[in-house]
Amino acid sequence: MLKNWEPPEIPEKEELKQRLDAASSKLYKMQMQIKECKLPVLVLFEGWGASGKGSTIGRVIKNIDPRFFKVATMSSPSKDELRRPFLYRYFKQIPEEGKFTFLDSGWMEQTCKDCLDGLDEDAYSKRIESIKRFERQLTDNGYLVLKFFMHIEKDEQKSRMNTLLQSPDTSWRISDFDAWQNKHYKKCRKIFDYYMTDTNLSTSPWYIVDATDRKWAELQVMETMVSNIEVALQNSAHSAPLLQNVFPLTKLPRLSEIELKNKTIEDEDYKKELKNLQKKLRELHNRIYRKRIPVIITYEGWDAAGKGGNIKRITEALDPRGFEVHPVASPEPHEKSRHYLWRFWTRLPKDGHIAIFDRTWYGRVMVERLEGFCRENDWKRAYNEINEFEKELSDWGAVIIKFWVQIDKDTQLARFTDRQNNPEKQWKITDEDWRNREKWDAYEVAVNEMLAKTSTVYAPWHVLESVDKKYARIKALKIVIKELEKALK
Amino acid sequence: MLKNWEPPEIPEKEELKQRLDAASSKLYKMQMQIKECKLPVLVLFEGWGASGKGSTIGRVIKNIDPRFFKVATMSSPSKDELRRPFLYRYFKQIPEEGKFTFLDSGWMEQTCKDCLDGLDEDAYSKRIESIKRFERQLTDNGYLVLKFFMHIEKDEQKSRMNTLLQSPDTSWRISDFDAWQNKHYKKCRKIFDYYMTDTNLSTSPWYIVDATDRKWAELQVMETMVSNIEVALQNSAHSAPLLQNVFPLTKLPRLSEIELKNKTIEDEDYKKELKNLQKKLRELHNRIYRKRIPVIITYEGWDAAGKGGNIKRITEALDPRGFEVHPVASPEPHEKSRHYLWRFWTRLPKDGHIAIFDRTWYGRVMVERLEGFCRENDWKRAYNEINEFEKELSDWGAVIIKFWVQIDKDTQLARFTDRQNNPEKQWKITDEDWRNREKWDAYEVAVNEMLAKTSTVYAPWHVLESVDKKYARIKALKIVIKELEKALK
Repeated sequence: MLKNWEPPEIPEKEELKQRLDAASSKLYKMQMQIKECKLPVLVLFEGWGASGKGSTIGRVIKNIDPRFFKVATMSSPSKDELRRPFLYRYFKQIPEEGKFTFLDSGWMEQTCKDCLDGLDEDAYSKRIESIKRFERQLTDNGYLVLKFFMHIEKDEQKSRMNTLLQSPDTSWRISDFDAWQNKHYKKCRKIFDYYMTDTNLSTSPWYIVDATDRKWAELQVMETMVSNIEVALQNSAHSAPLLQNVFPLTKLPRLSEIELKNKTIEDEDYKKELKNLQKKLRELHNRIYRKRIPVIITYEGWDAAGKGGNIKRITEALDPRGFEVHPVASPEPHEKSRHYLWRFWTRLPKDGHIAIFDRTWYGRVMVERLEGFCRENDWKRAYNEINEFEKELSDWGAVIIKFWVQIDKDTQLARFTDRQNNPEKQWKITDEDWRNREKWDAYEVAVNEMLAKTSTVYAPWHVLESVDKKYARIKALKIVIKELEKALK
Repeated sequence: MLKNWEPPEIPEKEELKQRLDAASSKLYKMQMQIKECKLPVLVLFEGWGASGKGSTIGRVIKNIDPRFFKVATMSSPSKDELRRPFLYRYFKQIPEEGKFTFLDSGWMEQTCKDCLDGLDEDAYSKRIESIKRFERQLTDNGYLVLKFFMHIEKDEQKSRMNTLLQSPDTSWRISDFDAWQNKHYKKCRKIFDYYMTDTNLSTSPWYIVDATDRKWAELQVMETMVSNIEVALQNSAHSAPLLQNVFPLTKLPRLSEIELKNKTIEDEDYKKELKNLQKKLRELHNRIYRKRIPVIITYEGWDAAGKGGNIKRITEALDPRGFEVHPVASPEPHEKSRHYLWRFWTRLPKDGHIAIFDRTWYGRVMVERLEGFCRENDWKRAYNEINEFEKELSDWGAVIIKFWVQIDKDTQLARFTDRQNNPEKQWKITDEDWRNREKWDAYEVAVNEMLAKTSTVYAPWHVLESVDKKYARIKALKIVIKELEKALK
């Protein structure tokens, strides 16, 4: 892209001023439409050191009400961030509906730096795949993603750096990398070029900005923003193609085929096994921690299937400094107004830690599907989006253990009734539980589809037969132990 | 893509039958919606020889009324087709609104064959760019583009071929290339894999079909078609991002800056020059013909600017077997119902020939823009689409000469009045001409934008000052001669 790019001609001073005024007032007017149409806008500024990314953002945001935007400067990842998946710190920053996020450099800079540090070809390809999926998931889910590359020539960069370095007030703005970049301008340019060609998606294309003149750069950015926002506002309910699954799947039985009857355990055996298994798990947790392997355990299942008690038997065995349980209820407003995976991305564990999710992102293809909380295209796309999400976690090195806690309809009724009649358990049963129960058959269809489409080899589902809760607990412990041992090998 | 792909599990016979029935009846019902929503659907079948592309198409179309689809088998390009741009034969085949085209192999097969024949890396990259632009232009313009790759393993292919070869009734279906393919299966697979990875666009993704079992292959195709059509029907008026211009531009004056007054020629000089230049052009046409250089000359300009007379002075000098003039009026229904460039793609000259267009594809950003014949997003996207189209022609080797024939408003009035008052010329003036004249100022804005955005170095605009028509004719001849000489060097 950069190779063939030629800067457009700078307009005359008077024209530039007029066009800038026009773009400013358009952008100013647009913020309310963006708010009304609930359009989230992510604006990424990449480019050369000293090309004026920060100052351009500073001028652009003058046209926007401070309640409607956030600016994030992505310096090098912190120690904590380095212990999460590559995309973690970027996913975190995605805007809410109706708002802007401006990123002062992002996944391009980090990737190109890693390339210069010797990222090999395979790792680079994988990274590009991740980035393309990330951006496509955003645009598929209604985000406007604008990517600017601020371009200046080598001499211009050199002279800017020299100016900045002359004063202690500004010299901090030139990093070691910036200086290195100027010395190896040609090499960097080539890497930037490859990266942009590889990630020039039709739904989130690159815009190269001639950043030689600051006002002119601002105008190019403003006009591109305005015209792209205009287009995005026309597409409020756009549906995206349903992609083919490209991940190998494992075969799971349908719910109706799962034998529940003989899955029981004697009390004596239970106590003994529980003790042994928990001891074993405690040891493994230590080794996982030292080897910095991230672990993600998820629970889905029918109401009153026994998820809570099951989770408790796992956590009893874990060092509290190394795990977290995330009970997942309906999303908060600030969660609902972002990509549905945002609240899970932001809850990912550090490596070496265990995160247990009591209900998960699979809500998208169960409750959200059945209650109409999202469009048909949204939940149909979600199978692939979730497989991609878990692939990201798996490539990061995470052990992913997904449980479906299964009971039959009669067992649920007995437990509901028991809860209803028992004052101490009444808090555990709500009208909603009864309403959901009425939709059992529809849920069963959705769950079967979910199990069939998202049981990938890197993140397979495990069924816990839980009419006898004790049986289910032992089985869960055994699976967790087995998976951790596999990962430690 | 192929590398990591694993075939999904074949459903039981009974389930397969049920799902096939369901998909069939859905597709059957959808045809009317497709018609109503004016959705054009292009279904491309690529894949291994003997994978059953043709027979799958045969079974799919049984669910569609014959008035609503066309099947095109793309065998090797004919001699005539080889004298056109690579995409010519494919663009020709794109469906009308509300209809299907099924292609039995297409631009993938041709590209992969060319790769096996030694297409070098640069040429391959260029080809991939062309293909991505082609598909993106279709989906941006509201087309649904479905790409299937029919996959079978080496042994399966071998055994199918042997069966087919045993009978003279079927042996013709195995081409030399098919046989070669089976021998070099691994090499072919690698090339297919690269190609699919390179062209897996988010708006026109690949779907790999496990074609081992014919019924099962049919089901995969049918279900993918149905779900994608459902999605596409939701997006009838989708707007696409406006891409940045990536082609180097030449600077043109605004219309108001063009000096018209002193651009005249004496009658004596005109006659002499005309004779000499036409003689020169005649010679050049011969050389162009022998060297097989395609030439495209286009005329746009104000009504009564003198386009017709200008064209005549060019064609007088040409051998009638080697040129064609295409007068372009409003599109016919079958043209209007396709991508707006279709009627120009199908009129491209063979190499060595000269095509002269009296009005052109630039109607998109002039009359269609001003009369509201297309949406704002459509004409705004068109600058880039046209630059891409002309890039395609230029890469093919074409000389592209674009004339803007310029007069002032008073001159137009004088000529209109003259036409009106002269019985022999009255046919040349219509009410529409007068109506367009009223929109002169709006046209001027549009023309200025067009000249600024589409005067690329490989297809620059030339202004013909035509208050003195003779001056304009001599200038046009000189430009044509100069450009042809440049191409012959």
